[in-house]
Amino acid sequence: MTNERLLKQISFIVEIDKLKTILRKSLIMDSSRLENDAEHTWHLAMMAIILIEHANESDLDILRVLKMLLIHDIVEIDAGDTFAYDTKGHDDKAERENAAAERIFGLLPSEQKEECSLLWQEFEEKRTAEAKYAGALDRLQPILHNYHTQGHSWQKYGITSDRVLAYNKQIANGSEALWAFAQELIGDAVAKGYIKA
Amino acid sequence: MTNERLLKQISFIVEIDKLKTILRKSLIMDSSRLENDAEHTWHLAMMAIILIEHANESDLDILRVLKMLLIHDIVEIDAGDTFAYDTKGHDDKAERENAAAERIFGLLPSEQKEECSLLWQEFEEKRTAEAKYAGALDRLQPILHNYHTQGHSWQKYGITSDRVLAYNKQIANGSEALWAFAQELIGDAVAKGYIKA
Repeated sequence: MTNERLLKQISFIVEIDKLKTILRKSLIMDSSRLENDAEHTWHLAMMAIILIEHANESDLDILRVLKMLLIHDIVEIDAGDTFAYDTKGHDDKAERENAAAERIFGLLPSEQKEECSLLWQEFEEKRTAEAKYAGALDRLQPILHNYHTQGHSWQKYGITSDRVLAYNKQIANGSEALWAFAQELIGDAVAKGYIKA
Repeated sequence: MTNERLLKQISFIVEIDKLKTILRKSLIMDSSRLENDAEHTWHLAMMAIILIEHANESDLDILRVLKMLLIHDIVEIDAGDTFAYDTKGHDDKAERENAAAERIFGLLPSEQKEECSLLWQEFEEKRTAEAKYAGALDRLQPILHNYHTQGHSWQKYGITSDRVLAYNKQIANGSEALWAFAQELIGDAVAKGYIKA
């Protein structure tokens, strides 16, 4: 018979399937529908691999970056996606997400619960070089999506370019090169009328 | 101005967004819709992290497992998803997928194209311990999905349990423990009427 430890791991794997149903504010790039957290996370993990040379720190632990990214949105299964520009939604975000981490990572054997919780906290705190790089990608990806859907969520929610620039300038903490690229893209989006200046 | 190398990498990142539109035969576990390749891939990467202790080989390079999994379905952007039990579709699968790898990985700077192509080939060939473990997860995940959707695609396509057992026995090459678990799950699915014996 399958041991209890494996059954706990499987129950976690089944539970996190729900991440596929948590919708974000961005459209996927063919504009056919909203993106969900699971596919967003895959996209970030691919970006982490491909763009690693642009991180500010040259000696990053890419495995930790990938693990952090792969789990970073799992808490949204309970806590929901909080839109970047929703200041009210951010008031109780930490509280909602801590409870979610406790419940969902708590399905795992205890030392795996601990590992996932620490990785998630590291991502949230943005103190380590790995978390700063991972966080930079998490900010850059929606800008790419907005650009390639003619500014869909910027326009829908009336976000101006100064807010996008202010909110995303922390990309520079993880990658100056990607922040320079993001600024060019936002400038180009203004020129093309995808976002108001 | 952004350098040409970064622009190539971004063009790849934009192109692979299409993986979110490639539908598989499995439903997501709430049965609301078909799963797509991008979210499937995220799920596999999480499984790789959580289930690593069950791999036959104790000294796996988990980073290579993750990289292999993250890119393993990208060729399906051009080649489409070939259903596991579609023997005809498998006739020209390799040819279609090789052309896809050439085009899509070819968007990257040359040494990254080479790295991705080698990782994808390693996954396809299932010779290394890392590829065997990654392949085991890619077989186990649809069984979990079928079980948790009351055998949806098994029933829809008239797949019997002997075919599921025969097709998936290579899970044992990557993990005897996960193959034992998968057999229990299939047995239970027969008992519950999710699949015909």
